[in-house]
Amino acid sequence: MSQPDMKVADMQERVDAITHAIKPRRLWNSIMEMAKYGATANGGVSRLALTETDNNVRITLMEWFNLPHYHFFVDAIGNLFIRRDGASPSSDPVMTGSHLDTQPSGGKFDGIYGVLAGLEVFRTLDDLELFTSRPLELTVWANEEGCRFVPGCMGSACFAQPEDLPHWQVITDSENISVKQAVACFHRTMSEVPHRPLGIPVHAYIEAHIEQGPILENSSATIGIVSGIQGCRDFQITITGMEAHAGTTPASSRHDAMKTAVLLLQDLYSVMDSAGEECRFTVGAFQVYPNSSSVVPGHVVFNIDLRHPSQSSLTTLGNKVIELSDKHSDRCAIHAKELRWRKPFEFKKTIPDLIQNAADRLKHPSKVLPSGASHDAVNLHLCCPTGMIFVPCEGGISHNEKENAALGDLHAGTQVLAEVLYRLAENIS
Amino acid sequence: MSQPDMKVADMQERVDAITHAIKPRRLWNSIMEMAKYGATANGGVSRLALTETDNNVRITLMEWFNLPHYHFFVDAIGNLFIRRDGASPSSDPVMTGSHLDTQPSGGKFDGIYGVLAGLEVFRTLDDLELFTSRPLELTVWANEEGCRFVPGCMGSACFAQPEDLPHWQVITDSENISVKQAVACFHRTMSEVPHRPLGIPVHAYIEAHIEQGPILENSSATIGIVSGIQGCRDFQITITGMEAHAGTTPASSRHDAMKTAVLLLQDLYSVMDSAGEECRFTVGAFQVYPNSSSVVPGHVVFNIDLRHPSQSSLTTLGNKVIELSDKHSDRCAIHAKELRWRKPFEFKKTIPDLIQNAADRLKHPSKVLPSGASHDAVNLHLCCPTGMIFVPCEGGISHNEKENAALGDLHAGTQVLAEVLYRLAENIS
Repeated sequence: MSQPDMKVADMQERVDAITHAIKPRRLWNSIMEMAKYGATANGGVSRLALTETDNNVRITLMEWFNLPHYHFFVDAIGNLFIRRDGASPSSDPVMTGSHLDTQPSGGKFDGIYGVLAGLEVFRTLDDLELFTSRPLELTVWANEEGCRFVPGCMGSACFAQPEDLPHWQVITDSENISVKQAVACFHRTMSEVPHRPLGIPVHAYIEAHIEQGPILENSSATIGIVSGIQGCRDFQITITGMEAHAGTTPASSRHDAMKTAVLLLQDLYSVMDSAGEECRFTVGAFQVYPNSSSVVPGHVVFNIDLRHPSQSSLTTLGNKVIELSDKHSDRCAIHAKELRWRKPFEFKKTIPDLIQNAADRLKHPSKVLPSGASHDAVNLHLCCPTGMIFVPCEGGISHNEKENAALGDLHAGTQVLAEVLYRLAENIS
Repeated sequence: MSQPDMKVADMQERVDAITHAIKPRRLWNSIMEMAKYGATANGGVSRLALTETDNNVRITLMEWFNLPHYHFFVDAIGNLFIRRDGASPSSDPVMTGSHLDTQPSGGKFDGIYGVLAGLEVFRTLDDLELFTSRPLELTVWANEEGCRFVPGCMGSACFAQPEDLPHWQVITDSENISVKQAVACFHRTMSEVPHRPLGIPVHAYIEAHIEQGPILENSSATIGIVSGIQGCRDFQITITGMEAHAGTTPASSRHDAMKTAVLLLQDLYSVMDSAGEECRFTVGAFQVYPNSSSVVPGHVVFNIDLRHPSQSSLTTLGNKVIELSDKHSDRCAIHAKELRWRKPFEFKKTIPDLIQNAADRLKHPSKVLPSGASHDAVNLHLCCPTGMIFVPCEGGISHNEKENAALGDLHAGTQVLAEVLYRLAENIS
């Protein structure tokens, strides 16, 4: 039914038909259905990447696409692709998606919304019996959260840079299971799904996501047009002292890794506090060894997550982590290993402009904003024109079981997504 | 063969025969044999209380006493008693012993030495075919270390105060296994061993132990005569903030439990540092939740182990923990729960004097010192005249896989133990 020579007025009518046919209640129900996989007692979701729960939720998603014009693929890093036939099957697909893995005590919307907004668009096109010129693809990226396997956005990073596959495969979780083993397990659960090479050509990528911050809510905007993503530097700090008996070892003889960690962190929090509101400094993962109350700790290992929208501030503040680690290396050895340094960047204007136009046409109040969180779109940006649609989340709360979003906002975001996907897949703007 | 009317000169000859017949190589071999149970790659031992490994090492110990004049008993908290017949079977036994459980990365000597020094004394009496008037008992106390189940010295505490049994039984480990369940499992592994009530009358208790500190080594003494044990206050600190996204949540909106923990601990380390060398302040166990690098921690739980030989200092410093916890309860709630408050105490002179006399007679250089560590003797002190014999450990290092002791010192300590046990069991001094 693709009509590349269709008149602009006809196209507008088609877009109206699609955006009006989006069914908010069906979207909501699909989100609630997915939230059952790894549901926690407090109403959140715990669905770590490439676990049995994560694999099962993907199987359920595939079952929802049980129609002959849908085709499934997996790749070597554990991404899942759901391809909807287009009239020009050899043209590069327009892709949307996000992730289905969550934090250990995460919510129902982070990542999931982007996948299920895509599902809702595909279902609406099915309802209207509309096919686009270009194929559409809905992608579930592997390990976006980076909890079980550090760092995150693994699936999309490996899709964008397939040569890094061996680097990712050897990363292990806390039980010493490697990414390679976990992906092999995922492949076994869907053994009938064909494999596809990493990094196929993509025409454009659009990802819908909850904002995970308070900006849209505070400015009463429904649609966030993401201008870019702040930079980040991730460090792993290892402190090595010496285990000793808590009752017998005088302070002067101790090499207490915990005390050194506290003194270093106290200095770091102080530096980061004076760097202003744009700086994001978090110590979220922290392990003490042997972790016994009557033993002076011999080892401490923790991670630092530092983010800033300005490249020069990120450089200065990240260097402070290294400087202060050196400064505190007296009674214990401190090793600061930099795990990742991603510069801040802005999306090219193509997709953000399309998102802006759709929001305006649909009369959804919008706001241009940078993303505080990292997303798979960061990596897709290396492959093709890319953009993100944000919708508000309640109180800006995310990575939390209380994460919530309003159905009206989720609906609006899906309408914008539908229009942008359709225009791109029909090669019109 | 007990001879209560034996002359003093004959008794001295008997004591000489016993102390000369102690076999240091046999003692050493028994320590090395026990160290195989839970041996770590770095030469240490990991044998947590009431685990399969801990149960197995007790079975091996019992097998070493396979003679008709030995009798085994267990009690409701998981202690194991090995009773050697005496000529007056109804008189209260003289007891020695210690523990066989270790820290997660512990050594070969802490606790184990006290049990195996007792074994060596019993074996020597068997070699000489000597029986004492009073029965002798070798005790393996349950869960001295307090790693798997907090706090430690559980078996001896419950022996001394049987009415506390229900309190101990409900304590759980990190996998939610209760003490009651773990003890039931221990009982099943030795189902043929008869049960005995908690807290039978004891004539005297002597415990041999490595010092776990540097005092004996630094003063070239072989025998430490323990005068008493410093006091301790244990706290569990729970900090409750709010989980949030590390990339999107500005510092001003955070309720970061990790940051609050660092600020509180920095203050506490500073107070404790200025309290002088006698103060022991340790944060050895520390947990962050959800422990993910990109999530601002919503909860932190840690333990404080505070010890001091002076009751007034212990009171003041422990109260500082509570005061500073209150002071830092602004962005996050801090709850300081006191787990234990044990006052410093001195042993009555009876047993320390016997130890001093034996060390002098055997010409082992000795030193009177307080114990920095807590021991099961703390609890036995509530039941009967009690004392402890310390021997040096290399570099004062303990609760560490590197823990080591010299065979000559271990031998000397066992000779002193043999003499004191024999004199007490023969009712002579």
